[in-house]
Amino acid sequence: MSLAKVNELIAERKEQYLEQLFTILRQKSISTQNIGIRECADLLREMMEGIGIKTRLMETKGHPVIYGEMIKDKDAFSVLIYGHYDVQPPDPLDEWLSPPFEPTIRNNKIYARGAGDNKGQLMAQLLAVKTYLDAFGELPINIKFIFEGEEEQSSANLPAFIQENSELLKTDLVYTSDGPSHDSGRPLILLGVRGVLKLELIAKGADWDNHSGNKGNIVPNPVWKLMDLFRTMRDEHGRVLIEGFYDHILPISEKDTQLLNEMPFDRDQVAKLIGYEGLNMDGGTYYRKLTMEPTFNICGIHSGYTGEGTKTIIPSKATVKMDIRLVADQDPQDIFEKFCNHVKKVAPDIEVKFMGAVSPSRTSAEHELVQVVIKAVGEAHEQIPIVQPSMGGSLPDYMWTKTLGLPSIVVPYANFDEANHSPNENIGVDYFLNGIKSTCHVIHKLGAFHQSGQR
Amino acid sequence: MSLAKVNELIAERKEQYLEQLFTILRQKSISTQNIGIRECADLLREMMEGIGIKTRLMETKGHPVIYGEMIKDKDAFSVLIYGHYDVQPPDPLDEWLSPPFEPTIRNNKIYARGAGDNKGQLMAQLLAVKTYLDAFGELPINIKFIFEGEEEQSSANLPAFIQENSELLKTDLVYTSDGPSHDSGRPLILLGVRGVLKLELIAKGADWDNHSGNKGNIVPNPVWKLMDLFRTMRDEHGRVLIEGFYDHILPISEKDTQLLNEMPFDRDQVAKLIGYEGLNMDGGTYYRKLTMEPTFNICGIHSGYTGEGTKTIIPSKATVKMDIRLVADQDPQDIFEKFCNHVKKVAPDIEVKFMGAVSPSRTSAEHELVQVVIKAVGEAHEQIPIVQPSMGGSLPDYMWTKTLGLPSIVVPYANFDEANHSPNENIGVDYFLNGIKSTCHVIHKLGAFHQSGQR
Repeated sequence: MSLAKVNELIAERKEQYLEQLFTILRQKSISTQNIGIRECADLLREMMEGIGIKTRLMETKGHPVIYGEMIKDKDAFSVLIYGHYDVQPPDPLDEWLSPPFEPTIRNNKIYARGAGDNKGQLMAQLLAVKTYLDAFGELPINIKFIFEGEEEQSSANLPAFIQENSELLKTDLVYTSDGPSHDSGRPLILLGVRGVLKLELIAKGADWDNHSGNKGNIVPNPVWKLMDLFRTMRDEHGRVLIEGFYDHILPISEKDTQLLNEMPFDRDQVAKLIGYEGLNMDGGTYYRKLTMEPTFNICGIHSGYTGEGTKTIIPSKATVKMDIRLVADQDPQDIFEKFCNHVKKVAPDIEVKFMGAVSPSRTSAEHELVQVVIKAVGEAHEQIPIVQPSMGGSLPDYMWTKTLGLPSIVVPYANFDEANHSPNENIGVDYFLNGIKSTCHVIHKLGAFHQSGQR
Repeated sequence: MSLAKVNELIAERKEQYLEQLFTILRQKSISTQNIGIRECADLLREMMEGIGIKTRLMETKGHPVIYGEMIKDKDAFSVLIYGHYDVQPPDPLDEWLSPPFEPTIRNNKIYARGAGDNKGQLMAQLLAVKTYLDAFGELPINIKFIFEGEEEQSSANLPAFIQENSELLKTDLVYTSDGPSHDSGRPLILLGVRGVLKLELIAKGADWDNHSGNKGNIVPNPVWKLMDLFRTMRDEHGRVLIEGFYDHILPISEKDTQLLNEMPFDRDQVAKLIGYEGLNMDGGTYYRKLTMEPTFNICGIHSGYTGEGTKTIIPSKATVKMDIRLVADQDPQDIFEKFCNHVKKVAPDIEVKFMGAVSPSRTSAEHELVQVVIKAVGEAHEQIPIVQPSMGGSLPDYMWTKTLGLPSIVVPYANFDEANHSPNENIGVDYFLNGIKSTCHVIHKLGAFHQSGQR
């Protein structure tokens, strides 16, 4: 049977599907302010049940997770679809051209808080299941859903939830639609994230600031302590000198290099976007440094007097904040220990404070399911997808790849300019409809993969 | 004729001399707020004229200088006495036990703004001239006075004034009483100061802060730029690597070393005073590092986010404030040029801003006039003076030693706990009277030096 039927149904049901999305968008679900969360979860479960998905509301230490499943055959191929039903607060309200919780279409875009992030994308997944069922009578695979209510609060309780429910969530693939797609309009497929280790270093000199004349050369300056430490940790080319820092980094495969080189890159546009005219690298280098190499970044440093003019003191304290982006398979805990051991050896009186961490994660571009999804998304869009082996930023993708041991693929359905977290958040009507279509194609191709007995 | 008469007169006239000091202390002269400056200058000139000193009010770009002279013989030995008639603002007023401009004696101390800094010491000089004249009928040497009204504003216009009036101020020695004496109670003789060069360094990355995940490894971090620069400027032992930095430093003489070793030093007391229990050096080393060696101090550094928690950014800008203490005969302009040349070579995109400078200055401990003053002050106090080859801090002493080419000696008359610049500023009654006596002895010994034909 062909997917032409799917396209027909989506076109026919456009108004009905938009109205279903609007219903969800009208329901506030602001996690940080605990507004409308339970109401939204109930509404969503009702819709899911209407499609034939069995649902459960599962409590966490924070807002509840909606679990759903449609099981064809317990031995069949299973995909786990992740999404989140909570949204950012809508402030500043006076910058919205239409009210954030009254979805409005202008210029073929749906404007509402959560339109892009993530209700529009989440609804595209659900409506794809409905469409597929109506077109084909049944799903070719099992689908499980996990929709959390705390993504806008850094998914604080999700890792523990995943750990505790790993049996329930056992599947063959995790599939997520979140974030904006590429500004070229080509579909984007993301295969991983960089991790991050956040630290604070505190160096001390005397117990209080001293006069730099009357005490100069007598009390130690904590700024020099930090600088003397850092020259043992990083060479002048930026290479990290902490023993074992690079130990567990996965080699960049030929396939990865090919994908990085193929990513669209316009130097002038990027230079303008980041405010750095000195940018001098080709696209392959740019994406490799951005996604496949760790960073060693100082995001804040402070000591002494920093106002107008000069205050002639020897500061008593100096503080550095760092965020170190990690790439697969560096482990934040391991890197933190190596960092601390280095400091203990070189400057034992400098304090190191752990400020948070997220593990890196990557699914191989050569994984057979990645190839299936690339093909499905490409056919749905009738365009060759951009495949990015990793994002530069950090998300808890390791929950899927490490905790559950599954391949994880992210395919953003929202438009590049979705304005997530900002006033006038939106999703293009066509992006929403293409999202439904994409999921149908993915379900179909995964079914074929299952049928072929490759699993 | 003996100095016994001087002692008698000072004892007899104690109340009269205190009343004369009180008259000056009652007259406000707050330079930064321009309160009572001219009135105080007029009052002071009146007193000086009363003693027989010829005076002139000489304008500067700021508050006027009072010039005075008592010339015995234009070819005789001449001493130039420096002091300042302006005072700090009295705030915070509610911490004063008696009003700042109503001099009050408690515990044998005179409490008033300016009692120690510098009116009490300045009046001791003038009343010494009066006492000496009444005891001996005439002075054995010429005395010139220069009392400025902007010392509490960093003597902003004095260097230019000295330069313009170098002929008028031509003498054989500059003699200053300012600051607190040693807490042992022994008289203190200071022969120099460290200079200071104040700088600001500004390093830039991108035009604005970028996300450390989405842009990490792509835009340069200005904190690393500064750290990479500093590792070429200073080794991990604190030695400055800028070419020629140490070029013009005078060798430390045996006499200097002897004086530094002889200075009273109580490690535990100093450690407590500076809040640094780790202090681990003997007195000779302490004073050498503090007074005879330059510093390379960062007094402030700032970049990125420095509040609670972490903000994952690559900062666009990093700033360092430095104050580099210099020792004789380093020249701030020369050091500034060497600093800039180094930066230009190593990190040409880092901006260096000149923030001010004072030259170092030193009068040799072996200078014959230094020996005369040591002897005079020692006899007046009946105690061996502490001779400190240099202060750790910076004052424009170079005006005398470089601009006028004269030896310059500072003998503080105020007590150690004079609380200058603070509420309840004071001078001990005995310190005030000993100040008068000290100047009489200095005049007398300089007269003998003149008589001996050594000049």
